Amino acid sequence: MGNIKIIDIKRSIFEDNDKDADKLRAELNDKQVFLLNLMSSPGSGKTTTLIKTINSLKEKINIKIMEADIDSDVDAIKIKESTGVDTIQLHTGGMCHLDADMTRQGLRNLDLEKTDLVILENVGNLVCPAEFDTGSHLNCMILSVPEGHDKPLKYPLMFQICDLVLINKIDVMSVFDFDIEKCKEYIYKRNPKATIIPISAKTGEGIDKFAEYLLNKVK
Amino acid sequence: MGNIKIIDIKRSIFEDNDKDADKLRAELNDKQVFLLNLMSSPGSGKTTTLIKTINSLKEKINIKIMEADIDSDVDAIKIKESTGVDTIQLHTGGMCHLDADMTRQGLRNLDLEKTDLVILENVGNLVCPAEFDTGSHLNCMILSVPEGHDKPLKYPLMFQICDLVLINKIDVMSVFDFDIEKCKEYIYKRNPKATIIPISAKTGEGIDKFAEYLLNKVK
Repeated sequence: MGNIKIIDIKRSIFEDNDKDADKLRAELNDKQVFLLNLMSSPGSGKTTTLIKTINSLKEKINIKIMEADIDSDVDAIKIKESTGVDTIQLHTGGMCHLDADMTRQGLRNLDLEKTDLVILENVGNLVCPAEFDTGSHLNCMILSVPEGHDKPLKYPLMFQICDLVLINKIDVMSVFDFDIEKCKEYIYKRNPKATIIPISAKTGEGIDKFAEYLLNKVK
Repeated sequence: MGNIKIIDIKRSIFEDNDKDADKLRAELNDKQVFLLNLMSSPGSGKTTTLIKTINSLKEKINIKIMEADIDSDVDAIKIKESTGVDTIQLHTGGMCHLDADMTRQGLRNLDLEKTDLVILENVGNLVCPAEFDTGSHLNCMILSVPEGHDKPLKYPLMFQICDLVLINKIDVMSVFDFDIEKCKEYIYKRNPKATIIPISAKTGEGIDKFAEYLLNKVK
């Protein structure tokens, strides 16, 4: 497929990322564009969740996608093919996270006219992406059942900075020793204000709730 | 449990980590200690794999464990309780990886006399730990079935630097769209010399092969 644009992201030169992130948020507010930063471990189901959610929302709002990866463009191609929405691939060249300026480099390659929502799929990593404000309006993370319910204990910052936690792959809960009540307790310990939505990107369960949550944020 | 020693690891001051890693390897060679660096995503089953493997090997060789985590000591306690071998917890204070000097800080807190094998369980992360030589003799990583067979495409460096790849959670292969032949093909693309061992830490399948592989390396 030749219609996936690949952007090689350069390391930022700004020293004060927090300030730059606030600036980017203000720029996006002017354009009435809502930016969602989606984070998770590798393989927790970010791409499948996105595809289902985009397809449930794309008739109601205008969505664009930025797929960040160290290498490869498999996810961007999959999203473009499965949803038809404009998708670009950001290559981080080995870098383990995105900051605000790196996010801006991606946004420059999207036509933001009439765009309601941009979703940034961050690099699969529970550590580094949590340390950098991308300039997004909402931090969302996916924890999948096979990863275990103890992850909020071990990756505290990620759970602390996320407004929304999706617990994915609940369709396989019976084959894993995953205690969802304990998981919720650990998440609230890190962030008492977190919203938690259990989903199965595979079966579609809970995707309507996530889509509705996003719709309320964007409109 | 009061008998888990927690070491707060300090950021290294050495500029040339590769040189320092070679130095650490030489120091370990002098002491006839084999160091294994075990890496993976969060939740791929590093701790359960370790417990099963230690229990299969502990009568034959003397093993010590270093558990690296950003926070918490749940894994160290679990390993100590389930195997009885000496285990220490390394707290990285937010740092996403260990380098050679950080590894050395941990090793100083272990009695290496009569120790054959030290296993370092690195921070759960497929990106950053791959960039830093810990001074280990062997890099091993676990990829678990729920993460998907495409991970070698997306995290190239991790698969490139690992001599041994364990494919874990093969007991749940039937409920995930995981193509093990494709996975092997992608791993060999990154590292044609990689050894691949499919395992299930839960059922114990394949653990004997991993244990035997380690025994051959250590002796």
